[in-house]
Amino acid sequence: MSRLFMFEKPLGMRDTLPELYEKKDRVRSDIAETMKLWGYQFIETPALEYYETVGKASAIDDAQLFKLLDKEGHTLVLRPEMTTPIARVAASKLLKEDIPIRLAYSANVFRAQEREGGRPAEFEQIGVEYINDSTISCDGEVIALLISSLKKAGLDQFQVSVGHVGFAQELFMQILGTNGRTTTLRKFLYEKNYVGYRESVQSFDLSMIDKQRLLKLLQLRGGEEVLAKAHSITENDKGKQAILELQELWRVIKDYGFEEYVKFDLSIVSHMSYYTGILFEVYAGNVGFPIGNGGRYSLIEKFGKKATATGFALRLDRLLEALGGKTLENEMHCIFFSQERRKEAFGLAQQFHSKGKKVVLQDITGVKDLDKFTKKFAGSTLLIGGRDSE
Amino acid sequence: MSRLFMFEKPLGMRDTLPELYEKKDRVRSDIAETMKLWGYQFIETPALEYYETVGKASAIDDAQLFKLLDKEGHTLVLRPEMTTPIARVAASKLLKEDIPIRLAYSANVFRAQEREGGRPAEFEQIGVEYINDSTISCDGEVIALLISSLKKAGLDQFQVSVGHVGFAQELFMQILGTNGRTTTLRKFLYEKNYVGYRESVQSFDLSMIDKQRLLKLLQLRGGEEVLAKAHSITENDKGKQAILELQELWRVIKDYGFEEYVKFDLSIVSHMSYYTGILFEVYAGNVGFPIGNGGRYSLIEKFGKKATATGFALRLDRLLEALGGKTLENEMHCIFFSQERRKEAFGLAQQFHSKGKKVVLQDITGVKDLDKFTKKFAGSTLLIGGRDSE
Repeated sequence: MSRLFMFEKPLGMRDTLPELYEKKDRVRSDIAETMKLWGYQFIETPALEYYETVGKASAIDDAQLFKLLDKEGHTLVLRPEMTTPIARVAASKLLKEDIPIRLAYSANVFRAQEREGGRPAEFEQIGVEYINDSTISCDGEVIALLISSLKKAGLDQFQVSVGHVGFAQELFMQILGTNGRTTTLRKFLYEKNYVGYRESVQSFDLSMIDKQRLLKLLQLRGGEEVLAKAHSITENDKGKQAILELQELWRVIKDYGFEEYVKFDLSIVSHMSYYTGILFEVYAGNVGFPIGNGGRYSLIEKFGKKATATGFALRLDRLLEALGGKTLENEMHCIFFSQERRKEAFGLAQQFHSKGKKVVLQDITGVKDLDKFTKKFAGSTLLIGGRDSE
Repeated sequence: MSRLFMFEKPLGMRDTLPELYEKKDRVRSDIAETMKLWGYQFIETPALEYYETVGKASAIDDAQLFKLLDKEGHTLVLRPEMTTPIARVAASKLLKEDIPIRLAYSANVFRAQEREGGRPAEFEQIGVEYINDSTISCDGEVIALLISSLKKAGLDQFQVSVGHVGFAQELFMQILGTNGRTTTLRKFLYEKNYVGYRESVQSFDLSMIDKQRLLKLLQLRGGEEVLAKAHSITENDKGKQAILELQELWRVIKDYGFEEYVKFDLSIVSHMSYYTGILFEVYAGNVGFPIGNGGRYSLIEKFGKKATATGFALRLDRLLEALGGKTLENEMHCIFFSQERRKEAFGLAQQFHSKGKKVVLQDITGVKDLDKFTKKFAGSTLLIGGRDSE
């Protein structure tokens, strides 16, 4: 192969070297442990799915899908998220009994990127799907589990912003109807381009009162008091129903004692078209993007079963960024041995291992640069020739 | 989407449901723990690599590669094994200092299959690569770690069959030269088609003595005594060198106290063209295929660094098959609550969780079929209305 090309990886693809791997592994374990304690069961689905099923049902942009053809000419996709494959599994295998199901996953997902130096094209998500329970307790549990998971992972400063798909939707419907103006406003909200939103509202041919109602949407961010304000600007039942659900959710969150982590934001919308109710995003420290998100969705119906669900997905890469760069302590010991003391060295290593201590066994003749090698360890023992030294 | 197609997955792709997932997770953790104690550091590489680099360097059949085109027209492959990506990482990033490196991985690999009901097209491998140490201690450590890992995973009955690429290679070279006959015999050995091998040898135009030497290769399976026999049928230095290495390896294995798990088999060959020395396969119970394999290889040189390495890869699916079907105990408890006692229920669940006990919190109004749901749990507590009952 050509020397220049030899070390290259495809656009957006990354290697995870030992130090980052270990951090990621710890965070993943902490979160998975919490999910298991709450009764969530982990499942795994294939990396490749049919485009006709999972690819089309997924709300990820078609342009971001990695596609390939199988030997029979079917188009396959690398899964762009985990909610759709889990909806497929739940509908086909797990929902035979009409009871609530709690599932969890940690898996890499794939989204093609346009340019080098941009976002990763493969990244890990850890999340849950709480399926076939339509109570607000279900939504509350998912948000409480999200908060508990982040606390367990060691994150102190974070905020869950909670909104409701129904609120902005009904407000737009009442004032604008279903047309291009609604799409424009939704897009500005999704991109968090509030200047664009404001300018757009001002440019519409609407009464001052309606303009004010649309602009007020941007102010509906904060604590419990936001819900009363929201109630005052909506005029139809569906919009009011959304507020009632959020009020009930707030009572659940308070019973968990997690009020300090939750704020309302009724301007949250999603590009995932399958959301139907409460939805939320998690922000932490200086990370510019949400480290996770979730909500209630109807996706399972696309796979032929009448069941809604609420779930969340956390991005491990962004969570690690939020947790910051504490270096892990080097706890590795090395036992150097020469042939005549090999057996003794093996016995000593076994003693260390049985106590859960990390020890490398190293034949001293296998190391060309002993100084550089020794520096990799917290300590070393020499079992060479007739006597030993430390 | 069409109803018939809706639940389908691509050829060879599988879902892993909760029970199997949990078993797999435990086995993976046990093995990973062992590898970490021995000083191996885990890394992760992308699922997608360039065909020009990893695809071509890998020894997996081109027909088994999943290929796709990226937006710039480069051909990408889903990694068919982990040794080649790790060789890329080691050569490009980790071998800047000329010292031994111990790496580990657990990752899914992808190999396209021809028909339904056949082998999985995506399966998990867990393994190590011990890089840049040319001593036999290195080979011995990798085999000893393999044995320790399997013991830790709870496997009692297994055997590591150890051979050497150099032995059969030199024997064929001496007697047959490099021609089609060598290829034929190697293929029979790789397929373990010993009848085909025998018939083929008999059909060759060779002296009786040479035929006997080629046939004797099949008998070179067993304990230490095999090495002396092997020594007697080889006539050149490279062949004898292979035997010396195996003798040295046997002394290392004895110092680990692992003789009972190791047998020699000089008829082992590999389809992986990059092996250069000792190589081995692991068999367990009634599993028809090796549950793992490994050996010493020169692959890193393809990425421009002079370093050999020894590694092994275990297939988790086959290992689980070998471990057999013990059912896991259901330890999950459920607390049913009604709205007025929600806070009390949350507090009780928290007490369970803090003791490491798995507890589901269930709003009783979220369950349609209470009998079926309750059966999923080892026990349950009702916090409903004014008083509680168990």
